Amino acid sequence: MHLAAFVSAGPVSGSHGGWRYPGADHDITSLGYYTRLARTLEDGCFDFVFMADILAVPDRLHDSMDSQLRYGALGSLRLDPMIVLAAMCGATRHVGLACTISTTYFEPFAVARAMATLDHLSGGRAAWNIVTSFQDSEARNFGRTQQFAREERYDRADEFLEVTCKLWDSWADDALVRDPAAPLFADPAKVRRINHDGRWFKVRGPLNVSRSPQGRPVLLQAGASDRGKDFAARWAEVVFVTHAAPEPAAAFRHDLRARAERFGRNPDDIKVMPGIVPVVAETRTMAEDRRALLESLAHPTAGLSTLSYHLDIDLSEFPQDEMLPEMDVPGVQGHYREVAELTRRSGIPLGELGRRYGVGRTAAGFTGSPTDVVDNMEKWLAAGACDGFMIQTPYMPGGLDDVARLVVPELQRRALFRRGYEGTTLRDNLGLTRPAA
Amino acid sequence: MHLAAFVSAGPVSGSHGGWRYPGADHDITSLGYYTRLARTLEDGCFDFVFMADILAVPDRLHDSMDSQLRYGALGSLRLDPMIVLAAMCGATRHVGLACTISTTYFEPFAVARAMATLDHLSGGRAAWNIVTSFQDSEARNFGRTQQFAREERYDRADEFLEVTCKLWDSWADDALVRDPAAPLFADPAKVRRINHDGRWFKVRGPLNVSRSPQGRPVLLQAGASDRGKDFAARWAEVVFVTHAAPEPAAAFRHDLRARAERFGRNPDDIKVMPGIVPVVAETRTMAEDRRALLESLAHPTAGLSTLSYHLDIDLSEFPQDEMLPEMDVPGVQGHYREVAELTRRSGIPLGELGRRYGVGRTAAGFTGSPTDVVDNMEKWLAAGACDGFMIQTPYMPGGLDDVARLVVPELQRRALFRRGYEGTTLRDNLGLTRPAA
Repeated sequence: MHLAAFVSAGPVSGSHGGWRYPGADHDITSLGYYTRLARTLEDGCFDFVFMADILAVPDRLHDSMDSQLRYGALGSLRLDPMIVLAAMCGATRHVGLACTISTTYFEPFAVARAMATLDHLSGGRAAWNIVTSFQDSEARNFGRTQQFAREERYDRADEFLEVTCKLWDSWADDALVRDPAAPLFADPAKVRRINHDGRWFKVRGPLNVSRSPQGRPVLLQAGASDRGKDFAARWAEVVFVTHAAPEPAAAFRHDLRARAERFGRNPDDIKVMPGIVPVVAETRTMAEDRRALLESLAHPTAGLSTLSYHLDIDLSEFPQDEMLPEMDVPGVQGHYREVAELTRRSGIPLGELGRRYGVGRTAAGFTGSPTDVVDNMEKWLAAGACDGFMIQTPYMPGGLDDVARLVVPELQRRALFRRGYEGTTLRDNLGLTRPAA
Repeated sequence: MHLAAFVSAGPVSGSHGGWRYPGADHDITSLGYYTRLARTLEDGCFDFVFMADILAVPDRLHDSMDSQLRYGALGSLRLDPMIVLAAMCGATRHVGLACTISTTYFEPFAVARAMATLDHLSGGRAAWNIVTSFQDSEARNFGRTQQFAREERYDRADEFLEVTCKLWDSWADDALVRDPAAPLFADPAKVRRINHDGRWFKVRGPLNVSRSPQGRPVLLQAGASDRGKDFAARWAEVVFVTHAAPEPAAAFRHDLRARAERFGRNPDDIKVMPGIVPVVAETRTMAEDRRALLESLAHPTAGLSTLSYHLDIDLSEFPQDEMLPEMDVPGVQGHYREVAELTRRSGIPLGELGRRYGVGRTAAGFTGSPTDVVDNMEKWLAAGACDGFMIQTPYMPGGLDDVARLVVPELQRRALFRRGYEGTTLRDNLGLTRPAA
């Protein structure tokens, strides 16, 4: 079983009440905040930290950034995750460093090089969460007035991955010789141009970085649309999903593994990790009290604002006391499916949906004692719903400390989780093979 | 007086013999290499580390990468400097972190955000060395077959700087409130769009990062062409130059300060720092022996290869036993002027010029005892040639250790250099004002 921490380099990660929680660490622009977090993860033997991203302050609710900024919502402030992860690298030795980078607004040479560098400096711990970006507000920070259509974004992403893989493979593993006597620094016969000439990119290569410990960074993705799932099946080694219950998650995982096989891959080379927001405490009563406190702190407008951003729809245009109607949304398909399921199942009106979304997008059964939470995790594993979990801590640093202090030992007691790191690289710890050049 | 270390995240920085020097640290892709370097600089009270960059393996000599790779020349391997500097951030508290980023192949939103993040995490130590890139090989890694013309590159760079400055100023200094009770995370009235719509860029903003400790990173530049000098006079706060002697350096500095005044700036807000390659040892004889050893280790083809890259001319097409003719070169004007001066003064043929270029581009008088080297530094300062020096260490880590151990104490003894850091931020230490938002 694998564990990751889903973190934003901003005020909240798992619950919009997070930054308002008593004792929450507000120093989110300081290095210390991130190195403490990294050390907690490493003490808890987490596989990796996953840093989400967005390239603009969202403005989907009322066509304004106001709600995001005022209530410290998910997109209000975000440091550059690549810089944060690079800075965390020296404070840790084992935990993987997964960075979100968009294939729509960056260049493959730059991304391949940054990732190879992070993989070198971290001794083989780099991972890339591949996103295509889905907000017009992001397009408007990068020279466009509107984003590309989904199909175009994924076409570009496919070609982007082709180019980056060629670049990571452009130095043979033994190309860097460093023989001062010969002299032979690098063997020119083992460094090759890639001469990529496609629809979106022309890149001659080679990379000016030698092949890194993992060969290529671990590739993560979170596609839930049909095209997104095919993209994940082709490229991803870890897939982040959000599901309200184990059954749909198991169906998703089954489908994804089948798709991976159709792309000629071993389905065990693709790990599915659902995001959960565990609210855990020493006893169930204490956890429920904690959840009630979090609920009181998550401003309902903050949740509605972030749901608007995730669905890419201005939800202020719908009646707040009626159920969200079924519709096609341009935004994240996985998040839409999740709230549509919740609306159908519990019949709550939009205003309440927004409030709950702000408290934390999570499946049921993850509020409770360590035994409750781990029982539920076992249930998900037994249902074939996942290969591990992406922990979205409801507040920082306490929420993460609680997982490391209460949940991890219970997982270890049941022999569900490692007691120490087995491998050297993130690939080793995830049980993924190192790609040949 | 200010001191910086000019470093490449590759095999050599100051001399092409560097990686072949006995005891040289070959572990250039490891974090330890860079954190050791950073700590040495901080022990020596250096103002900042300056990390050079190039976005391709150069292939100007014989239209081939062979000479760069084989002889470990300046452009053979380069980690991404932004990742390296971010990773160095946690190992240090005072030393500035100056990163080279090209305005031609990146987007202003991404650069402004990365720099603001580095400035936050480092507590106000970020600096940006602005380059426009000048190699077709770089253009070919970023979708083009040829680079833009110099004028176009500088037009784009001017607009790039306008955009990044607007983004850095898009959050007022007091916009980030973080009041959980109100709740008020950030004051929406103090975060504004920039709505930039220019020839090269359309960027709506705001940045999704709050204003950083220095307000804006310190801006560095190295333009030596007429257009480059105007660009530096308009934007730069530190200018890196290469001159063979103090007199032309003083003339350059005088010109640059006058240009800065024409842009309405205080000339003291622009610091000129020539690059020097000090070869220092306990005695003059030991230093001369060290220089002779370095000369024997710098492969002549490596120097010719890097000179070809810097001038952007295939020097294999000229007779090696004749003097380099006067010509217009498309590459770095400062480096051309430097070798043209040397050719005129010493009458050496091209082959010998390449060899010397490979040993280390440096003014005379920087090989010797600590007294010799500091005497010469004083001479440059007295001539009004500079505000400090950019140290290009001939080999790593010994060459840097020698400067910190031998040169810095002698500078301190003569009260030419600080004994401890005066300020909190890099701006403080350089005596630069913090720009208002």
